Amino acid sequence: MQVGIIGIIGGGQLGKMLIEEGNRYNVLFNTLDPDGNSPASYISNKHIQGSLQDAYKINELANGADILTIEIEHINIEALKQLEAKGKIIYPNAGILEIVQDKGLQKQFYTKHNIPTAAYKLVQTPTDWTNALQETKWQKVAAKMRKGGYDGKGVALLNSAEILQDIDNAPWDVPTVLEEYIPNAKEISIIVNRNAGGEINCFDAVEMEFDAVANLVTYLKCPASISQDVHNKAKAIAQDVVVALNGIGIFAVEMFVTSTGEILVNEIAPRPHNSGHHTIEGCYTSQYEQLVRILLGKPLGSTGIIQPSAMINVLGANNFEGAYKLEFEKELLSMEGVYIHMYAKQISKPMRKLGHITVLAPTEALLKEKALKVMEMAQVILS
Amino acid sequence: MQVGIIGIIGGGQLGKMLIEEGNRYNVLFNTLDPDGNSPASYISNKHIQGSLQDAYKINELANGADILTIEIEHINIEALKQLEAKGKIIYPNAGILEIVQDKGLQKQFYTKHNIPTAAYKLVQTPTDWTNALQETKWQKVAAKMRKGGYDGKGVALLNSAEILQDIDNAPWDVPTVLEEYIPNAKEISIIVNRNAGGEINCFDAVEMEFDAVANLVTYLKCPASISQDVHNKAKAIAQDVVVALNGIGIFAVEMFVTSTGEILVNEIAPRPHNSGHHTIEGCYTSQYEQLVRILLGKPLGSTGIIQPSAMINVLGANNFEGAYKLEFEKELLSMEGVYIHMYAKQISKPMRKLGHITVLAPTEALLKEKALKVMEMAQVILS
Repeated sequence: MQVGIIGIIGGGQLGKMLIEEGNRYNVLFNTLDPDGNSPASYISNKHIQGSLQDAYKINELANGADILTIEIEHINIEALKQLEAKGKIIYPNAGILEIVQDKGLQKQFYTKHNIPTAAYKLVQTPTDWTNALQETKWQKVAAKMRKGGYDGKGVALLNSAEILQDIDNAPWDVPTVLEEYIPNAKEISIIVNRNAGGEINCFDAVEMEFDAVANLVTYLKCPASISQDVHNKAKAIAQDVVVALNGIGIFAVEMFVTSTGEILVNEIAPRPHNSGHHTIEGCYTSQYEQLVRILLGKPLGSTGIIQPSAMINVLGANNFEGAYKLEFEKELLSMEGVYIHMYAKQISKPMRKLGHITVLAPTEALLKEKALKVMEMAQVILS
Repeated sequence: MQVGIIGIIGGGQLGKMLIEEGNRYNVLFNTLDPDGNSPASYISNKHIQGSLQDAYKINELANGADILTIEIEHINIEALKQLEAKGKIIYPNAGILEIVQDKGLQKQFYTKHNIPTAAYKLVQTPTDWTNALQETKWQKVAAKMRKGGYDGKGVALLNSAEILQDIDNAPWDVPTVLEEYIPNAKEISIIVNRNAGGEINCFDAVEMEFDAVANLVTYLKCPASISQDVHNKAKAIAQDVVVALNGIGIFAVEMFVTSTGEILVNEIAPRPHNSGHHTIEGCYTSQYEQLVRILLGKPLGSTGIIQPSAMINVLGANNFEGAYKLEFEKELLSMEGVYIHMYAKQISKPMRKLGHITVLAPTEALLKEKALKVMEMAQVILS
């Protein structure tokens, strides 16, 4: 009985759930995070407090671990490359993180590998913006900072005419992807699992509902309401992306389904993802368990659905910052097939992801009813 | 966001799974166990190595914890009583452990509270044995040491005539319960959950199959194959036992169902139990989660079944002692609805509980087929 150690770069809620799901596999987890009280820090075997850009701290984590993984992309890639050069195994590897960190490189990768994606231009200067918008004649564009955007930050939906009228209306002048905005598209996500032996499978698509103000997923359901044909096509494309990357690990592939049934890859996250939380209770194997299996060199698990599920983010209320509690916790705990995951964050801030709730129900009709009820109840209040 | 600490007396597999299921509740677990490498020690927040009879060590655990629970009954009751006198909360409490530690007191408790149980005599000396067997005229008796028996140790099925012929055939001369043996009885177990507010519920009955040689449960299924009427009666009796005890915690109530449908309480375990492992995947709330909820003062969860389930113990092979592995681990990991729980025990010994495997299937017919296949595969071999 050998107990190994997995090092996780990042110590947030994704790391927390990775540990929760991984404990059954008799492996220990060490974490690195700037926050000494980060969600995963309480239950990790050893928590190193330090910046994810700090090569010294990343090395410290690596030295104490048999293998490394990540739960956030915004980390020091050079440090990872140097570790890989010395033979350290990191899933996903540094090359993939480098592509994913830069939405421009992501787009170029899709083009190069014939992965369908929305039309785009890479811009930076006001002249770039003007040329791109004049040339493409897109009415609306989604502008995304190539680097550093996260959870809706660094993303803007713009009217081309307004920008062309006065270039000062452009929201920023950092390297940016301008993308044709696809109206009435449905957003879906598919999590793909692939191990070092090349074994690959994926979960069913989930469908997302966004809070337009916060630009955050607030509710998702699995399976998505799409035709079997579109579903199959989306799964094939999602797996194609991961094979093209030669990716080892788990990968959330976010896609648009256009009103004509076309599928366009939006972006990928090479790690456990908000759109896969529901797999903990809704599927035979969770996204986290798949990653643990991959890190330990074990076969993938079944991605089959046990019951239709919905996932509701528990977000910080807009009217306060500070100590908090879940208003209807008792009532929620008493509901069958309702699973509360609070992330042990110290304080609430407006729109901060403080937890999520998974809802299971035997039929989609019952699921919708229960999910809407839970959404209403899942309010964060001052404690 | 306050993170509390639960102290667990014992650090075996039950403690391990309690921690695995409890992490989601943002509470930390400290453990006490004589083995520094016990199953729960790897993932507990703090592991204290020490005897469960050592009042000093129990106090050390108590001083660092907000509340205490147990995962094994054979512990120093006096130390717990002294802690309770000082106001420490222990679920289940010391008085219940005192009754449960002694199978004679358990029997007397059932008699006192009109709980149906098999007829019995309390004996110790050869004269006691002779008198009891002559008086009762039972053909076969189950002899159980009042204290210290565990997993089939200290239990014997005997022919009265053989003992009466030569009292030296009695297996021991310690305080003993002699019980009328009920032929063709089915063994079932129901886990009852009860919190400090008096809220009570129970899981569906599981049915057990024993390995006659090892006298160990090797396979159980949920729900049990009993009539709805018997099931309802068994649930009512199981809850009656816990209410009579004024028990707070979770309680496995093992019962016989006789060939005429009569229900007799055999014994109780005031803690998570082998017969409740299947609840982790098979039910909306696991037995471990129920205990965590009770310790944290939260409402009970639904005990509803998600899918019919079977639980197979992974036992040490009879032909070796030492480092081990699961022979068909890869194949088992690839099967849908098959969950391997290995307990991180250092070495295998004959018949040692090294892990268990839960099997889910949508129908009972499919479950049986899959469970039998898994039982054949779940062999422990030298590693």
